[in-house]
Amino acid sequence: MRMSKMGFKPEKLAPKDADTINHKLLVQAGFVRQLMAGVYTYLPFGLRVLRKIEQIVREEMDAIGGEEMLMPMLHPAEIWKKTGGWEIDVLFKLKSRTDREYALGQSQEEVVTPAMKEFIKSYRDLPRRPYHIQWKFRDELRSKSGIMRGREFLMKDMYSFHLDQADFDKFYEVAKKAYLKVFARMGLSAKVTEASGGAFTEKVSYEFEVPTEAGEVNILYCNSCEFCVNIDDINSYKPGDSCPKCKKEELIPAVAAEVGNVFDLGQKYTKAFDLKVATSTGEFIYPIMGCYGIGVSRTMGVIVEKFHDDKGIIWPAQIAPFTVYLIDIKKDKEAQEIYDQLTASGVEVLWDDRDINVGRKFTDADLIGCPWRMIVSDKSLATNEVEIKSRGENEIRMMKMEQFIDSLK
Amino acid sequence: MRMSKMGFKPEKLAPKDADTINHKLLVQAGFVRQLMAGVYTYLPFGLRVLRKIEQIVREEMDAIGGEEMLMPMLHPAEIWKKTGGWEIDVLFKLKSRTDREYALGQSQEEVVTPAMKEFIKSYRDLPRRPYHIQWKFRDELRSKSGIMRGREFLMKDMYSFHLDQADFDKFYEVAKKAYLKVFARMGLSAKVTEASGGAFTEKVSYEFEVPTEAGEVNILYCNSCEFCVNIDDINSYKPGDSCPKCKKEELIPAVAAEVGNVFDLGQKYTKAFDLKVATSTGEFIYPIMGCYGIGVSRTMGVIVEKFHDDKGIIWPAQIAPFTVYLIDIKKDKEAQEIYDQLTASGVEVLWDDRDINVGRKFTDADLIGCPWRMIVSDKSLATNEVEIKSRGENEIRMMKMEQFIDSLK
Repeated sequence: MRMSKMGFKPEKLAPKDADTINHKLLVQAGFVRQLMAGVYTYLPFGLRVLRKIEQIVREEMDAIGGEEMLMPMLHPAEIWKKTGGWEIDVLFKLKSRTDREYALGQSQEEVVTPAMKEFIKSYRDLPRRPYHIQWKFRDELRSKSGIMRGREFLMKDMYSFHLDQADFDKFYEVAKKAYLKVFARMGLSAKVTEASGGAFTEKVSYEFEVPTEAGEVNILYCNSCEFCVNIDDINSYKPGDSCPKCKKEELIPAVAAEVGNVFDLGQKYTKAFDLKVATSTGEFIYPIMGCYGIGVSRTMGVIVEKFHDDKGIIWPAQIAPFTVYLIDIKKDKEAQEIYDQLTASGVEVLWDDRDINVGRKFTDADLIGCPWRMIVSDKSLATNEVEIKSRGENEIRMMKMEQFIDSLK
Repeated sequence: MRMSKMGFKPEKLAPKDADTINHKLLVQAGFVRQLMAGVYTYLPFGLRVLRKIEQIVREEMDAIGGEEMLMPMLHPAEIWKKTGGWEIDVLFKLKSRTDREYALGQSQEEVVTPAMKEFIKSYRDLPRRPYHIQWKFRDELRSKSGIMRGREFLMKDMYSFHLDQADFDKFYEVAKKAYLKVFARMGLSAKVTEASGGAFTEKVSYEFEVPTEAGEVNILYCNSCEFCVNIDDINSYKPGDSCPKCKKEELIPAVAAEVGNVFDLGQKYTKAFDLKVATSTGEFIYPIMGCYGIGVSRTMGVIVEKFHDDKGIIWPAQIAPFTVYLIDIKKDKEAQEIYDQLTASGVEVLWDDRDINVGRKFTDADLIGCPWRMIVSDKSLATNEVEIKSRGENEIRMMKMEQFIDSLK
């Protein structure tokens, strides 16, 4: 993509109304705009990142047997009344012209369970793992964390259906591992954190927490083992307590942001919607359900909070809007050739070919935060090399183009 | 994809509550499920088709300078009150817990205009063509046309901004051509139809109408030239009138379904949101806007209405969920080899490897409607060929696999 052809450009100044780093940088760099608190427009750069996060999530859900579908957002009130969900305070409610009541989906148990009832009749039809990546709505009282706490937000939610607790437990572990892989692919190290089941279940649930000061959750974790607990939810522990799991170290407090969660829903929803299956012995039982969420748009915000410096965003390679930010100091055909060579090799390039001061190009390269900055200059042309710099490092390297392209693979 | 691994299967019987062919076939073949009138879940097959339609639309919009972004669905009431849109009867309205008023987007002029104001300051910033593919909501009194008239529906809406009427008029023609190309790629021949501008404008607008008895619009068209008019909107014409354009033939009545529309919005929204630009002579003027909609989910319904027979759907190749429906009569490793060969060549295959009566496989092949049915049988194996049949034809052909794969390209 050529910057000179782009209508959505980075700004010189940060927005004045930014409460958080992700809001500030994402607006200034031209990724998003706020329509109102908690509701954002994704500009072309932002949409590219969102789609890449979505695709990583999709691949890992498909890899564990996920079946992608798409459930709607406008729900009849009846399904929410059936489970008690109608009383949830963050549920947006509305009425039609003819006084029919609807809810806007903030989760989809009430849709997926009756939908699956038709397809799950016998033990042979289990397990099942439908999921979708769909926008959700929450009537938040405050929404001041940029795209980290949306009133409208993109979420992947998977639901699993199992014949018995043992089968559920087995898949629960598979799903947790897949989640860690999803986050690792985005450069995030997430902690599997014990928490309460909230509105969904009496059982312990697990949150995937990324330590960051922009977070809203207080956790305690152990440095020796993987133990981690949300102490806003589960207050049996306090900082300095010995780790209840390995007993080797004291628990360390941190502030963290939730990027995903998994719940053991038990039979709550299968009972509510009378989804039962015939077992191999001819009895009828209610399957055990799990639900598995990943905040797609929220994770994009968390990534900006984790990966930035005072000059701008530092995108992890796999979700960066472009891999290379190409700057031509010489206004020559050479930059075009390099751009063509890179794109022909499948490298995503943002070419800053604008007729502006080169200092501004360097500033915008840092602000936008593509993993590699490449400069075409007299110096690089003289040696038949390219001058590259990693966004996260200061060192400038000269390299043959082929070598650089190989290094990306 | 292997049918034996799929949880969402076609049904033997058509749904009892179907008012329309698209609802009936899409449900029976396992593409969608209705949550309530006008609100549907897209099952994996349905989502594949929806994404393919979306991708065709995206490619053609990008080809005419479209800039893809993603605008939100939950809108503050103020922007709708500013333009008078708050009074539109199909606009869904809701309130937060703290009594803030919102609308659910049924179109996005009220979002895109203030958003673009920041990026359009001078004549040098024009023209611009932002678009998105996003779900919309309409508070329909009745919604009985399957996925053709949704209360929640997927739509591509592009908005263009121009310095003057001449530049708008030029792009208007470019957009109309791109629309015809979009529909042609999906196998649809759409008529560019004069209509009123509805709530948007006093000017004539153009609808893209596909003749089908499932449609809701009465049109009059000329067989000699391209003249076509929506007579529900513009009642200056009646059947049998001489064509006002070419004057060669009498106008013919038909019922049609709208799949897209384009509007000259004039300065209505740029004035409402005070989006003005400096001209080259230093004056300030309000740009001319256009808006360009394509009903993505609606078009999927129209395609089913147009392309089906009494056995099921006949998908046009470019948007079919899979290209080949592979049936193995012999339960042998040969079917696996053929499946592997096809997928390695980039052909999308749905392999019906279920342990069921082969008659049911033939029935489901017709119902699901992939363009090609391929059979692995003793006969085909003996001659080292594959037995193929086009969904729309009766003739069975024997062919070398390489020849078949080549024919798809």
